[in-house]
Amino acid sequence: MVRIPFDELKARVTAVLTRSGMDPQRAALSGELTAGTDRDGVRTHGIARLPRFLAMAREGAIDLKASPTTVASFGSLERWDGHYGPGNLAAYAAMSRACALALEHGVGCVAMARSSHWQRAGTYGWLAAEQGCAALCWTNTIANLPPWGSAQPALGNNPLVFAVPRGDGRHIVLDFAMSQFSYGTLEKYQRNGQQLPFPGGFDEEGRMTTDPAAIQKTYRALPIGLWKGSGLSFVLDALAGMLSGGKITSDLGRTAKDETGVSQIFLAVSPGAVSSFTELDSITARAIDSLHSVAPLSESDKPRYPGESVLRIREENLQQGVAIEDPVWAAFLELEANVSG
Amino acid sequence: MVRIPFDELKARVTAVLTRSGMDPQRAALSGELTAGTDRDGVRTHGIARLPRFLAMAREGAIDLKASPTTVASFGSLERWDGHYGPGNLAAYAAMSRACALALEHGVGCVAMARSSHWQRAGTYGWLAAEQGCAALCWTNTIANLPPWGSAQPALGNNPLVFAVPRGDGRHIVLDFAMSQFSYGTLEKYQRNGQQLPFPGGFDEEGRMTTDPAAIQKTYRALPIGLWKGSGLSFVLDALAGMLSGGKITSDLGRTAKDETGVSQIFLAVSPGAVSSFTELDSITARAIDSLHSVAPLSESDKPRYPGESVLRIREENLQQGVAIEDPVWAAFLELEANVSG
Repeated sequence: MVRIPFDELKARVTAVLTRSGMDPQRAALSGELTAGTDRDGVRTHGIARLPRFLAMAREGAIDLKASPTTVASFGSLERWDGHYGPGNLAAYAAMSRACALALEHGVGCVAMARSSHWQRAGTYGWLAAEQGCAALCWTNTIANLPPWGSAQPALGNNPLVFAVPRGDGRHIVLDFAMSQFSYGTLEKYQRNGQQLPFPGGFDEEGRMTTDPAAIQKTYRALPIGLWKGSGLSFVLDALAGMLSGGKITSDLGRTAKDETGVSQIFLAVSPGAVSSFTELDSITARAIDSLHSVAPLSESDKPRYPGESVLRIREENLQQGVAIEDPVWAAFLELEANVSG
Repeated sequence: MVRIPFDELKARVTAVLTRSGMDPQRAALSGELTAGTDRDGVRTHGIARLPRFLAMAREGAIDLKASPTTVASFGSLERWDGHYGPGNLAAYAAMSRACALALEHGVGCVAMARSSHWQRAGTYGWLAAEQGCAALCWTNTIANLPPWGSAQPALGNNPLVFAVPRGDGRHIVLDFAMSQFSYGTLEKYQRNGQQLPFPGGFDEEGRMTTDPAAIQKTYRALPIGLWKGSGLSFVLDALAGMLSGGKITSDLGRTAKDETGVSQIFLAVSPGAVSSFTELDSITARAIDSLHSVAPLSESDKPRYPGESVLRIREENLQQGVAIEDPVWAAFLELEANVSG
């Protein structure tokens, strides 16, 4: 593991993006979002994804120059077209717009068609919360999860985010996919020769199993809540596709490079529009206090609220440099060496 | 099991409510929603709940005369106070208002404090979809689920609804609680001497189990998706409480009769405001076709979309009379015999 100062990381990612053909200002924001993902400890979705992102841009699957446009608007609802641009920039713009609509109308919604992978889902929850908005957002994805009653992957894992803004900046941000374990996690357990801590899918005999290799063989990973997560994945996809007028999971193919043109929903509510934010915030504080007062099963693993550990990790990475795993850093150095410009 | 013609059931429930002190017009709507729940096959949340509802009204926990009022409004967002009135009437009014706001502004949201149990969650999803709106709604509940990392129930099972309107009325409505199995379901399996089909909680040794009795002993029922559903339950409660300025789960106590003053969120989006509904509906149709084309594990249990079986059950109950289990019907007859008036 290496530790790179956050500002340096941000600048170097920005430079790679600029030299790859992104406008400098857009590259600076994308660099900040990407480096910020590693800074917050979500290492799978930060610079680890850069090589794939730039490969997709080279292949024309992502258009580095494209920005989303508004297709139609009506009061607090807008329909956007992402034009296959960089997903993080488009999602940043869409959630910012949903919050602006919420500040103007109480509630705001942007439904975006034809965007690309937005990298870390939670980014847009934090973004909304920083603007004092409660928010929900989700994206559809390629098919990587079998619907309940089938062994054939046909649903996306469709990450879903809920954000609750706090007055002190310690926002509550839940960011979760519809699969109990990602394929990345299954791979890690298998590499380490470990069983999953809980059943994560079905083996070839159709039995629930904690064996990561068995699940990688069948592709029958478990949706969260079994039939419930299967249903949730389906409605998130249908809503994202139909509200945006965009693609649904079955339009997206099955490999990572097919994951372009995804549909996304951004919903924001401005609690301060109808109440004293300070009063409402004291209710959230009580919910947190109540969770923290519950007897834990073990002192080392107490009940936490979603996002609770992010600020601690962020602080640590800002002080000590952003922690990056060696192979990810090696791949980044290779990118730096190879991008033209 | 008995079968009672829907119109008769509706009229008899309405009569019981009227004789219990509800205004006739409100009783007629409540009777329709209650009988409609049994008609749609959700037998746990229809007339089966009437005895408890009327007992709570007698004890003053629910105020049969109370209607919600608007506390504050700003554009497409309203904050309501339910004044401890009948939860189904209040939720019906709140979702109707959210849809009216959506038709006017594109998106609409009502955050309601101090309501009571809304009976069948899906009712309000169907209501929104009937008005051409996509919708989300949820309620908090008493603590009946341990947060991840604890064995002590401190989260609600907080039912959550997503609705996608269809042009042909065959709406997609997902209605699910945060617990993998309800205590009602655990009880049923135990009574029948059966194991759960999938792990549903932890036993006294802290192992995941399919034994309903063991889970009833520990009260450690599983949240859907384990830590994920625990996080989701927490944010739904925090959002419901803070957006409405109302109670959170930890304010509600632990027994069914404490479940008054709950907080609820109703969110509606009008897809027709920014697009041709017919075009968007064809996207939803493709999502359904795609799900139906997936190879099933068994011909008798094919992948279905949420709400798919409701219209078939509704049709059957309308034709043959609404199916009601004997003990539920006996309890209803006792209510009829005993209410004054």
